[in-house]
Amino acid sequence: MVSHSVHTSGLYTDFYELSMAQGYFYAGKEAEDAVFDYFFRTNPFKGGFLVFAGLGDFLEQLNSFTYDKEAISYLRTLGLKPEFLDYLAHFSFRGKVYAAREGEVVFPNEPILRIEANLIEAQLIETLLLNILNFQSLIATKAFRVKLAANGKSFSDFGLRRAHGFGGLQASRAAIIGGAATTSNVQAGFLYDLPVSGTMAHSWVQSFENELIAFRTYAQINPNNSILLVDTYDTLRSGVPNAILVARELASQGNHLTGIRLDSGDLAYLSKKARKMLDKEGFTEVKIFVSNQLNEHVIKSLEDQGAPIDGFGVGTELVTGKPDASLDGVYKLCVSAGKPSMKVSENIEKNTLPGKKMVWRFFDEEGNIYRDGILLDHETPGECEWLYHPVQTDKKTLVCQLKREQLLQPVYEKGKLLQPLPSPAECHQYLLQRAALLPEEHKRFIMPHIFKVGISGQLLELRNNLIANYKKNYE
Amino acid sequence: MVSHSVHTSGLYTDFYELSMAQGYFYAGKEAEDAVFDYFFRTNPFKGGFLVFAGLGDFLEQLNSFTYDKEAISYLRTLGLKPEFLDYLAHFSFRGKVYAAREGEVVFPNEPILRIEANLIEAQLIETLLLNILNFQSLIATKAFRVKLAANGKSFSDFGLRRAHGFGGLQASRAAIIGGAATTSNVQAGFLYDLPVSGTMAHSWVQSFENELIAFRTYAQINPNNSILLVDTYDTLRSGVPNAILVARELASQGNHLTGIRLDSGDLAYLSKKARKMLDKEGFTEVKIFVSNQLNEHVIKSLEDQGAPIDGFGVGTELVTGKPDASLDGVYKLCVSAGKPSMKVSENIEKNTLPGKKMVWRFFDEEGNIYRDGILLDHETPGECEWLYHPVQTDKKTLVCQLKREQLLQPVYEKGKLLQPLPSPAECHQYLLQRAALLPEEHKRFIMPHIFKVGISGQLLELRNNLIANYKKNYE
Repeated sequence: MVSHSVHTSGLYTDFYELSMAQGYFYAGKEAEDAVFDYFFRTNPFKGGFLVFAGLGDFLEQLNSFTYDKEAISYLRTLGLKPEFLDYLAHFSFRGKVYAAREGEVVFPNEPILRIEANLIEAQLIETLLLNILNFQSLIATKAFRVKLAANGKSFSDFGLRRAHGFGGLQASRAAIIGGAATTSNVQAGFLYDLPVSGTMAHSWVQSFENELIAFRTYAQINPNNSILLVDTYDTLRSGVPNAILVARELASQGNHLTGIRLDSGDLAYLSKKARKMLDKEGFTEVKIFVSNQLNEHVIKSLEDQGAPIDGFGVGTELVTGKPDASLDGVYKLCVSAGKPSMKVSENIEKNTLPGKKMVWRFFDEEGNIYRDGILLDHETPGECEWLYHPVQTDKKTLVCQLKREQLLQPVYEKGKLLQPLPSPAECHQYLLQRAALLPEEHKRFIMPHIFKVGISGQLLELRNNLIANYKKNYE
Repeated sequence: MVSHSVHTSGLYTDFYELSMAQGYFYAGKEAEDAVFDYFFRTNPFKGGFLVFAGLGDFLEQLNSFTYDKEAISYLRTLGLKPEFLDYLAHFSFRGKVYAAREGEVVFPNEPILRIEANLIEAQLIETLLLNILNFQSLIATKAFRVKLAANGKSFSDFGLRRAHGFGGLQASRAAIIGGAATTSNVQAGFLYDLPVSGTMAHSWVQSFENELIAFRTYAQINPNNSILLVDTYDTLRSGVPNAILVARELASQGNHLTGIRLDSGDLAYLSKKARKMLDKEGFTEVKIFVSNQLNEHVIKSLEDQGAPIDGFGVGTELVTGKPDASLDGVYKLCVSAGKPSMKVSENIEKNTLPGKKMVWRFFDEEGNIYRDGILLDHETPGECEWLYHPVQTDKKTLVCQLKREQLLQPVYEKGKLLQPLPSPAECHQYLLQRAALLPEEHKRFIMPHIFKVGISGQLLELRNNLIANYKKNYE
């Protein structure tokens, strides 16, 4: 992988992480063992799943999560104390990371990643972890939804101009993991080795005396790689006819026009008209690409209407994860000083799950993903295992004699990756394998079937005992 | 200003900018003069204005918009041609930038920034410009709306964990421009010299034997700077009573508890209850801070209910600009090879304005912002000036004997800033001055009064002539 020009450091954190870390340090707790879980609570986009992404970036950034002299001087100005600053000057993350594979399909309330480290290490990296994983998982999920809608046709990420500043780099990475064929984002292509594409904007057309000359000039410079943007003046009366003239010129030279792009107006109507005009002149191989405020729903509608479109350019909604714009992923302490711990909420759904845990995935007889079960880490699911609904605990399922696997694998330890990081393209391949095992009802856009994640009887009992204990303190 | 660890280069662009630039190069158009306008079409958040932000960052990044050897090698792999790659190896932006001041209140369809450069320069920087200005303007606007709702109380940016990857750095910068008092984001604080704050999370409380010990330990380490998070177990039965115990201990040592923070439950109800409990024990000076999925509307509601809250922590919606998540800012060619140019749209509202233009701002007798007028750059508004509605051109207003000023000022030329960049804090001060001159009706959240931006008679005529000319080509 190429080196990143975007680096973070130990400063890439919320100040309260440092303030707490200093507190742990002075309270003599820095060597205490802690376990934190990363999980999310609600599937984005009212969908039925999340595509887990960002892991590779997060693990890379972990190595640069240190404090150099300049950083220490800066933290001194924020009021941190000398002994703790000395500690930070020698800080690096030495803990373990367990995680699902990047590109995995995952579900609400199950740990997707687990950190085992001393309390200070585990605390300091919280913000970095959430920042990277929340965003990239959101975008990879959006991209995969676009891919599902596109019905086997390809789409490209066009979003950098509307992306959130430098977050655009990570948006493009996640878009490729989720299924974009290419990105317009050259810097992201360079950093992450992504396929890059792009041809022309309206300014190209405007900068010439007329549209025909603009098209012809572009085609002469790019004789077998031209996609002509046909809506600068009038799509059907000017753009498409001029594109046909240029297609004919190219053909007479033994070349061919790759395609045209529609960027405004009714894309179903215009693509049908344009297809007819092209076909009538014998240019059945000239493709039609479309763009302009697309998302999975608009694309699905275009497909439902039988619009003769060959590929989609998707920008704003893809890279911003609109309308959600964020994933509600959280990072919660579940083991403190070796003991199970949890956050108790007045809203029972927000009670966290205590203890070091493992997620087991069960597959049905046809090999499809059937249930996920959260067990304490030391448990091994028996041939038959009861899985309890985490909130309505009178609901339970017996999972019997099903193929199962552990979702979380060790990926990082003692400052080192335990295996090479897969490329974004490889993550997408993994997503395709896994999503193929997820029944269609969970991938539906409208009211998808809820995938069931249960907890073991032992975990349920541990949680109940802890809640009872906490309540003793104030009841 | 401290140096940035986040650098971009000439690769920070959409590939089509490079593809077009190569085309201009081979078409012998690289020396042609071009002018592009940056403007947006719709106020975000259904509001009545935009806060312009990101200019300082953009101008800084312009200087590093070059191509080193590694970049050139990479671009070769994307199929760009040798002569053009040689050109890029010596490329730097040598054009002029005119812009509104950072922190200015601006309105739809008026140029906020104008680029005068050769065609290749102006084209290549498009994506960088849009990426930085669109996002930071969105967030600064959101932040200022939060400030308007907060009714004189302060708020902090807590958003890094939900921000879009490294875009979180720029989100925090823009949040301060818009009015956040502090940010939790330490790296942004370091890079942009922003005020930083933060105290504790639930994990702090969980990591101790019980809540009282957790609070006491934190308070001992930070005797005059403790904000205790009171909702880990039970806000009113455990959190607030324990905070009161610690407040008493601090008082007996001659120190005092800064405040408590509520992070769940009904914040109006809990803040009133907590205030009473604190006051009853004589801790009237202990402040109440709140957080948890806040936005301008929730804060306004809390204020309307008279919730005794002293400050707000705002995260997700502030740094993602939810629900909009993007600003629709665009960058359009208006002068090409010295001649006025425009994009014609089937939707008349999307016709762009041709020619090099200046925005004039007119103030009424009380000094309030009254109208903006877009004139051709060579025009000087007379004592009395007709301003035409840009779409319904039968509507016009006569602007007479009003104080006026030019909104766009030269800020960058020949690779140099023409004046020092204001800090984010200074940009916020400017915003306060300008927003004070904007009548309240434009700042309302619900159906704000539309601010009127008109165009001059000369500009209107130029546009009509150009449209007629384009149509000759295909009618």
